[in-house]
Amino acid sequence: MTVSPLAPAGFPELPQIGGLRLATAAAGVRYAGRPDVMLAALDADTSIAGVFTRSSTRAAPVLDCEAKLGLGGTGPAAILVNSGNANAFTGRAGLEAVKALTDATANALEIDEARVFTASTGVIGETLPHDRITVVLGDLAENLAPGGFEAAAEAIRTTDTYAKGAGTVVEIGGESVRIAGIAKGSGMIAPDMATMLVYLFTDAKIAHGPLQALLTSLNDLTFNCITVDGDTSTSDTLLLAATGASGVDVTESIAFADALHGVMRDLAHQVVRDGEGATKFVEVRVSGAASDEDARKVAAAIANSPLVKTALAGEDPNWGRIVMAVGKSGAEADRDRLSIRFGDILVAENGWVAESYTEEAGAAYMKNPELVISVDLGLAGGMATMWTCDLTHGYISINADYRS
Amino acid sequence: MTVSPLAPAGFPELPQIGGLRLATAAAGVRYAGRPDVMLAALDADTSIAGVFTRSSTRAAPVLDCEAKLGLGGTGPAAILVNSGNANAFTGRAGLEAVKALTDATANALEIDEARVFTASTGVIGETLPHDRITVVLGDLAENLAPGGFEAAAEAIRTTDTYAKGAGTVVEIGGESVRIAGIAKGSGMIAPDMATMLVYLFTDAKIAHGPLQALLTSLNDLTFNCITVDGDTSTSDTLLLAATGASGVDVTESIAFADALHGVMRDLAHQVVRDGEGATKFVEVRVSGAASDEDARKVAAAIANSPLVKTALAGEDPNWGRIVMAVGKSGAEADRDRLSIRFGDILVAENGWVAESYTEEAGAAYMKNPELVISVDLGLAGGMATMWTCDLTHGYISINADYRS
Repeated sequence: MTVSPLAPAGFPELPQIGGLRLATAAAGVRYAGRPDVMLAALDADTSIAGVFTRSSTRAAPVLDCEAKLGLGGTGPAAILVNSGNANAFTGRAGLEAVKALTDATANALEIDEARVFTASTGVIGETLPHDRITVVLGDLAENLAPGGFEAAAEAIRTTDTYAKGAGTVVEIGGESVRIAGIAKGSGMIAPDMATMLVYLFTDAKIAHGPLQALLTSLNDLTFNCITVDGDTSTSDTLLLAATGASGVDVTESIAFADALHGVMRDLAHQVVRDGEGATKFVEVRVSGAASDEDARKVAAAIANSPLVKTALAGEDPNWGRIVMAVGKSGAEADRDRLSIRFGDILVAENGWVAESYTEEAGAAYMKNPELVISVDLGLAGGMATMWTCDLTHGYISINADYRS
Repeated sequence: MTVSPLAPAGFPELPQIGGLRLATAAAGVRYAGRPDVMLAALDADTSIAGVFTRSSTRAAPVLDCEAKLGLGGTGPAAILVNSGNANAFTGRAGLEAVKALTDATANALEIDEARVFTASTGVIGETLPHDRITVVLGDLAENLAPGGFEAAAEAIRTTDTYAKGAGTVVEIGGESVRIAGIAKGSGMIAPDMATMLVYLFTDAKIAHGPLQALLTSLNDLTFNCITVDGDTSTSDTLLLAATGASGVDVTESIAFADALHGVMRDLAHQVVRDGEGATKFVEVRVSGAASDEDARKVAAAIANSPLVKTALAGEDPNWGRIVMAVGKSGAEADRDRLSIRFGDILVAENGWVAESYTEEAGAAYMKNPELVISVDLGLAGGMATMWTCDLTHGYISINADYRS
């Protein structure tokens, strides 16, 4: 598969996280000869927070993770992820597969089964051949080593055209705290939540409660603000593990929150940049709405509109379709107060095309691979930003053939 | 443009409606050499009912029609429709264009301006060159004649690949009542309301109030149950004119309501059958929901899902994507009570694929151009039906190039 034209130059250098070891294996879950299982071992007493899809048909591993996070346990932990099969809508067999995997992982690592978190991504409705994974668990446990983020990101890919990673080192009170994360996702992407799978690791020290609160609020600004196709996965899982290995307590640290926000936004953007068939990365900014919620409705209507997204694909500065999307959003809007900009170009205001606007300027702007569409509703102070991509022949080719 | 493979064999024979005369003209609104204006003259004291887009950015003609219908006037009436330009988001000039057109029509037909209804469909955000239409109004008035539905349907087309008409004659108390209608629409189609433009005429006798009530309730079962791309037009207009020429009072006539329902459903289906790029006509039936509203949410989530619609395009019996759509709908659902059928084939039940289901049977069914997808939620008695089409390369081709 051709790498997305919007992909970053390469997988970034990521800081090693004390207390974290990774390993991957080729278990042949669906396809032979490619790494398709990732194991993360968190050796210290690690705090773990998570957010998940709110789909009413969510997969067995999601239900298991939610239940375990609710226990708020302590001690070492592990995360086991496979690609190729989502273990979703697999009835009783789905939960049995999860149990088999978490038991085997707990045995291999000699940790509490209640601290083993799994995820599966890929085809829905087929039984997960979990024995193919359990037989490689011994090898996985033996191969655990620091680093290895790129290999882990590769192992959890499905239709992704590149491995996604992001990280940073933040100085807090003269001491370094490290954050590193990986993600997968390129279709079936919509808030909430639009992650598919994201694993974030830090050596910061912070208890489960504040870690969960921080993750939830940052998730609303990042992964819940992206869309590729408006479809929501049954498997979306975001876990954040804080090993405490740095010894730096980050509870209520704004610097840490900012750094984590940056890493999460980076990964969220990478998912959009790998949107199935995408050739444009688009930021939709809405301001002047009656409320933040209204602003979000307008941003989502624009970001999900097939007609807006096909116009972007055709590099057509078709601002009429943006007016259409504002109109259908359900948010309070007054046609005559609305203004629209493409980048810095004022396109429409006062219920009409702007006097200064030329079709040539709009068409030239649309040639850019990265676009900003701003809509001001002129009503009050409500704001929202979402990120989306265009809708191309590539999306149809991928999804009319691929069985996901 | 190639005619949709789902098109009816041809334009139907429609009954003449007493009190109605039609004419068309080539005004060159956007394209030269094609009929692009339709005039309908309703000579008797005609009752007129209407439903319109609820977009907050609806076009000037829609605002004008809504205001005039609210007056509940009586007397002769006229309907003037152009294609090529939607006169939407055209600021003050938009209302001025409507006024110029309604004044000129009122003069040409010597009727009250408050009884002239207009609609415009086509590109958004460009000033309507209304003088090109007013100069042909004399010719239009002279050419008015009974019949002529096909020419009228042709004149209001934009991306439609065929002219859409439907009609019937219903016997009520031994007397004949005639219904005939035309429609246009193939993209930017979503409830509510999903018509684009629909004009229905009958020689039935019925006052404005009951006519409006009947139209509103039947609209909820027909045009508000179709979707092509989930995008909502700024111009959607449905007018129903009852000339009374038959002398048959149909107030509270169930036979008339049924006949009108049939004509509206036929036209609604024709819009979906002409969905941009469509190769499959799909009925989505949802039952067993906690409420009708929940059933509608599930039906809409399935009917609008890009992943479901691309699977249909690929003739892929990918029922996992239907589970996904149920999950994201926001309706109450229990994975383990859900059942899914393709036509008569039981695909999934009890939270898993059905024992009797084979991928071969599903794949063979998907080859049909007309498909029924049934989902039973197993909770209560809530039901809904929607109609949609697949999402193909054709949709991308049409919308990444066409400026609408």
